[in-house]
Amino acid sequence: MGMTMTQKILAAHCGEKSVEAGQIIMADLDLVLGNDITTPVAINEFNKAGCDCVYNKNKVVFVMDHFVPNKDIKAAEQSKQIREFARDKGVVNFFDVGTMGVEHALLPEKGMVVSGDLVIGADSHTCTYGALGAFSTGVGSTDMAAGMATGKVWLKVPPAIKFNLTGALPKNVGGKDVILHILGLIGVDGALYKSMEFTGDGVKSLSMSDRLCIANMAIEGGAKNGIFPVDGVTVAYLKGRTDRKPVVYEADPDAEYERIIDIDLAKIRQTVAFPHLPENARTFDDIPDIPIDQVVIGSCTNGRLEDLIVAAGILKGKKIADGVRCIVLPATQQIYLDAMEMGLLKTFIDAGCAVSTPTCGPCLGGHMGILAKGERCVATTNRNFVGRMGHPESEVYLASPAVAAASALAGKIAPAE
Amino acid sequence: MGMTMTQKILAAHCGEKSVEAGQIIMADLDLVLGNDITTPVAINEFNKAGCDCVYNKNKVVFVMDHFVPNKDIKAAEQSKQIREFARDKGVVNFFDVGTMGVEHALLPEKGMVVSGDLVIGADSHTCTYGALGAFSTGVGSTDMAAGMATGKVWLKVPPAIKFNLTGALPKNVGGKDVILHILGLIGVDGALYKSMEFTGDGVKSLSMSDRLCIANMAIEGGAKNGIFPVDGVTVAYLKGRTDRKPVVYEADPDAEYERIIDIDLAKIRQTVAFPHLPENARTFDDIPDIPIDQVVIGSCTNGRLEDLIVAAGILKGKKIADGVRCIVLPATQQIYLDAMEMGLLKTFIDAGCAVSTPTCGPCLGGHMGILAKGERCVATTNRNFVGRMGHPESEVYLASPAVAAASALAGKIAPAE
Repeated sequence: MGMTMTQKILAAHCGEKSVEAGQIIMADLDLVLGNDITTPVAINEFNKAGCDCVYNKNKVVFVMDHFVPNKDIKAAEQSKQIREFARDKGVVNFFDVGTMGVEHALLPEKGMVVSGDLVIGADSHTCTYGALGAFSTGVGSTDMAAGMATGKVWLKVPPAIKFNLTGALPKNVGGKDVILHILGLIGVDGALYKSMEFTGDGVKSLSMSDRLCIANMAIEGGAKNGIFPVDGVTVAYLKGRTDRKPVVYEADPDAEYERIIDIDLAKIRQTVAFPHLPENARTFDDIPDIPIDQVVIGSCTNGRLEDLIVAAGILKGKKIADGVRCIVLPATQQIYLDAMEMGLLKTFIDAGCAVSTPTCGPCLGGHMGILAKGERCVATTNRNFVGRMGHPESEVYLASPAVAAASALAGKIAPAE
Repeated sequence: MGMTMTQKILAAHCGEKSVEAGQIIMADLDLVLGNDITTPVAINEFNKAGCDCVYNKNKVVFVMDHFVPNKDIKAAEQSKQIREFARDKGVVNFFDVGTMGVEHALLPEKGMVVSGDLVIGADSHTCTYGALGAFSTGVGSTDMAAGMATGKVWLKVPPAIKFNLTGALPKNVGGKDVILHILGLIGVDGALYKSMEFTGDGVKSLSMSDRLCIANMAIEGGAKNGIFPVDGVTVAYLKGRTDRKPVVYEADPDAEYERIIDIDLAKIRQTVAFPHLPENARTFDDIPDIPIDQVVIGSCTNGRLEDLIVAAGILKGKKIADGVRCIVLPATQQIYLDAMEMGLLKTFIDAGCAVSTPTCGPCLGGHMGILAKGERCVATTNRNFVGRMGHPESEVYLASPAVAAASALAGKIAPAE
């Protein structure tokens, strides 16, 4: 029996010629990631187990991004604990206020993940790096602790769903619309503990930014990971970011898939996920007038330069609607600098937006844009669960940067023209 | 008996030819200010008293700046209450996320206060506008509520201390050093319920930014207000910001002062206020090596463009010390835009700082840079009370933007060269 892309990466990382779905393996790790919320728990487990050193000082990464710059004393204490642990253990890749960015935007940007890698992170959206042809998945803090200590992780080899992409996206439609459309099709448990493998002729038309966005939200379908094949777009993206060579794993022609879903990218339309699940995908023929209070443009899903370019293109020379707060969060310092250089930040501020230093902030109800009772937000983030961005009676509508920007101008959920 | 500058403004606003220290007056208000923390309390009092309308829709100002962009659900609910009240009562000057700035930087910038005005604000540092030759003072939320409803305020006419300024400041010494030096001289209760009147030949050498900084911290000496005479610097500052004409009140030659203090500006040196009071002023001949964890450059005291120019001048082409977080908070959207245009924000980020959207944030332990136990911060803010920026066992050292920037580079409290 042939293997999927994911299975090939897993086999290579556990020293087996072949693995199959359902098999339990112990795999070698290329990178272990934690953030300011999950790392303290991992450190405590690490210490409790009597561990002394991290398995590789270059392969453990801590990114302070969720409640940073410290929102309160608790956040400050968490950051401090990680800072001291990183110093004590000689962890090279510690990203603090000033150098940090949203982890899943930062790691690809810094060339810390290459095709063929096996990465775990104590954050749900670690699956993002599948865009680069890596296996990456979110784990709990205990697995992170074990990974930090041993450089290994237990995994059950996942079965897969193949998404056969064809065509190319229409204007103002992006990766976010693709993944929201898919979640609408399969539901939030539609890929439970499976790989979502994106293949087909349509892949080549997708930018790396689109792929990162799509892989990022694989977890919203319950998937163990999302993954794209490696092509010229991947190689071009990695170039100059790292000296490590990408390792390419192609799915075997006879790889087994539990399901094959054909997606014609040309038919994808601007899509919004209504409260309170990412699967509640609707297109604009099915969206009534819904006034909004806030727009958030940012996050590991859609806070990259390409996202800001799209949003600024729509906001340029215009003013956001009265009564709407629009918060723009470039995902990393480099994105911030590039967006500044390109005049995008000026466009945002001239339009009446607030531009924040990089942080996950409002996405998870952390800080920098929390919603009051009854308030509605259009957000380029990845989750719209009950109370996700603040009050349990607030509402989050997930959308692309194009729709978010158009909605900020209209004062209601609106398509980009 | 002659009157001080302050007494003349008060007399003009209560319809008396003359007032004297200790007299209780009912004065007319030119402006009533509240922020996102104090306004909800004022609104509740306003409603409890059965008030229906604000006395003048153009003379009531709400600035959402303390816990904004909303740091949590409570902050979101407070902002929402004010937003709805402002809409309901037709309050014209409501500054929300996207248009807001730190209130005491924003109001002068927008030309909302002119010389001769009488202003109250439910915020301690409302005394800032004395730099423009206005009488302005902080009040409680109940006085704010009464002011919003009636356009009047009860005041006890303050006696005064005269600060006779001569000379001009040396290089890398600014308004912040002047006021910290003065607080060191008189103590935090040295001007309790008095006017601090700054006069003398030295005034003309002080920029408006220096004057705003000095007047801003009059409250740290316990003063009712701080005030500067109106001169060419004042007129130049107001020009283009407002059509209202400044009204100039000069102190009578025989005005009574409880105390006259001579300050030779040329002798002021770079000054740092040690924990936990602004009066703990020290110069660098009396400062040991003190390692720091964080630097904050911003606030109503030192978040203006001139402050950012000074800080960027010191940071340009350099990197802040390992282990130091440096958070830069331009005080308004216009300052942010100007600083961006001038390349200052790029300088900050290249040096390893985080640049935040305008907010009071860390100054009052709100958000965006809270300290953990045992951490030390050099801040250009105005208060270093116990726990002011976070944990009760953290420490805040007050300093100028020059000293703050130099300290960020050195990783310890350090003078600007």
